Amino acid sequence: MMAELVTIAVDVMGGDNAPQAVLDGIERVLAENPDIQVIACGLPEVVEPFAAAHERCKAQAASEVIAMDEHPANAVRRKKDSSIVVGCRLVKEGAAQGFFSAGSTGACLSAATLVVGRIKGIKRPALGQILPAYERPTLLLDVGANADCKPDYLVQFGLMGSVFMRQLMGVAAPRVGLLNIGEEEEKGSEFAVECHRQMKAALPGFSGNAEGRDVLTGHFDVVVTDGFTGNVVLKTVEGASKTLFRYIKDVFMASPKTKVGALLVKADLAEVKTKLSPDTYGGAPLLGVKGAVLVGHGSSGALAVANGIAKAAETVRADVAGVIAATLAEEAVQ
Amino acid sequence: MMAELVTIAVDVMGGDNAPQAVLDGIERVLAENPDIQVIACGLPEVVEPFAAAHERCKAQAASEVIAMDEHPANAVRRKKDSSIVVGCRLVKEGAAQGFFSAGSTGACLSAATLVVGRIKGIKRPALGQILPAYERPTLLLDVGANADCKPDYLVQFGLMGSVFMRQLMGVAAPRVGLLNIGEEEEKGSEFAVECHRQMKAALPGFSGNAEGRDVLTGHFDVVVTDGFTGNVVLKTVEGASKTLFRYIKDVFMASPKTKVGALLVKADLAEVKTKLSPDTYGGAPLLGVKGAVLVGHGSSGALAVANGIAKAAETVRADVAGVIAATLAEEAVQ
Repeated sequence: MMAELVTIAVDVMGGDNAPQAVLDGIERVLAENPDIQVIACGLPEVVEPFAAAHERCKAQAASEVIAMDEHPANAVRRKKDSSIVVGCRLVKEGAAQGFFSAGSTGACLSAATLVVGRIKGIKRPALGQILPAYERPTLLLDVGANADCKPDYLVQFGLMGSVFMRQLMGVAAPRVGLLNIGEEEEKGSEFAVECHRQMKAALPGFSGNAEGRDVLTGHFDVVVTDGFTGNVVLKTVEGASKTLFRYIKDVFMASPKTKVGALLVKADLAEVKTKLSPDTYGGAPLLGVKGAVLVGHGSSGALAVANGIAKAAETVRADVAGVIAATLAEEAVQ
Repeated sequence: MMAELVTIAVDVMGGDNAPQAVLDGIERVLAENPDIQVIACGLPEVVEPFAAAHERCKAQAASEVIAMDEHPANAVRRKKDSSIVVGCRLVKEGAAQGFFSAGSTGACLSAATLVVGRIKGIKRPALGQILPAYERPTLLLDVGANADCKPDYLVQFGLMGSVFMRQLMGVAAPRVGLLNIGEEEEKGSEFAVECHRQMKAALPGFSGNAEGRDVLTGHFDVVVTDGFTGNVVLKTVEGASKTLFRYIKDVFMASPKTKVGALLVKADLAEVKTKLSPDTYGGAPLLGVKGAVLVGHGSSGALAVANGIAKAAETVRADVAGVIAATLAEEAVQ
């Protein structure tokens, strides 16, 4: 039996390498996934000839583009015919089930919240990021949707993260950790102590405090924090990995001996770099909105775009938003 | 001309490998630095025979030990004859000019604040950590002394960090960044926006927002944040570097070809690991107390202890505490 077609709206104008990298990514994902259909949103002269030349691809003209440096909420309110707003509207109206963009993260968050809308009962949607932890992938959230949080937001982040890891990554009983600065429950800032108390009382699967070093060990399936700390951690991981590879490159160039050694390990080492690259996962899921919204890295290349679209389709099939809504309704009853 | 002797009190009972690693570290630092003298604080049966056998080493009996998992402030108040409290008392009384411990960080912070005392005008002492950023070392603070901060604390952290980098690391005009989640001044949490405003108004050398990826690039000499975020970042860097080396080790063991390659680069790669190890710097300076207090990693080996003691002596010679006090007095006048 063929799987049913899933339709993903794609912001063709978003990202440092748009529109070419996005078009290449769409071409790639369509070729590899006969059960995915794409609505390419963007300037008509870009999306229309492309859609005409590709099967399972429709064009949706959008006359405006939101730049990376515009004020997100203002841009979304003002540019109602931008590719981001148009793509989100397709999801709201049911023409698409998911949306992918490598454009302005802030604008995507605003549009997803304002246009697609929050799941009933969700206080704040949160942006998640799958990290390549050693033992298994770890979902960190919020990585930037909410710089200021209240403790009850974090309880919901834990619940949404759990659903994502269960539905999409096949983790039967996700272990959820609260990012903190010590293992004991009385450790941390006043905010963290109160989050711990509320998560312990209300969150199934809560496994105590996680520390910074745990985000890459895989000891937790989900690590929950506010959007300020989460964004700092995410960028610290990116920076640490980049700096480490610079040091390693220097070592490889140090002498004729190390140069020969480098040749022998280079190909395999590139795989580590790939594993740690944000392109591999393809995007950060925005959890808590009614639909599958994925935001890609601004620097996304074609591979990252293809992975992001495929991941958005998987998120649709796994019905992450539906299960979050159902779980929330259940918990509210208890 | 011989440099004058600097006396450092050392907590012989602190750390996972105490007392042996601490004694070995003292032996090492004494052998390498004829201008350093140590007061070894600890159980008499441990420190007395050691001091008797080493030049420039005195013993100071301390009948109690604060364990790593004790409540810091309570332990410091109750165990007045513990090696940490006794060591800090030697600094307060002027018998020593600096103190080093690889024991409980919390207990060292409590004892340093309660016993050694804050510099006049300093609201909260902060724990700094030198990070091995690519272009030059970067001082991150606070890395854990104050989980809850007010914006004006961070202005002082910036000032203290600047003095440290100028006096001790020879940076003529340190660039101070505020850890935040975007470059623009209106970005971030309410707390971060207010910190930015106050730092911009009052802090010489303030160079705007730094992001998570900047803590390892060397684009800033000092990166300032609250003790919660700073501790999370520090542990994230440690964890990222550990995970990356695990991945690299797996690559090296992957095939006969990579095993040969690994042999050729192994020695040089070990240097990178050393550079990134917390042992290399030897300890985290506690800035804002009247004296040079350095806290080592719990896992400190002899090398880290020796480096920590040497760094405490350098901090004394550079008169970091004195210059902080003078700068604060000057700024207050303005």
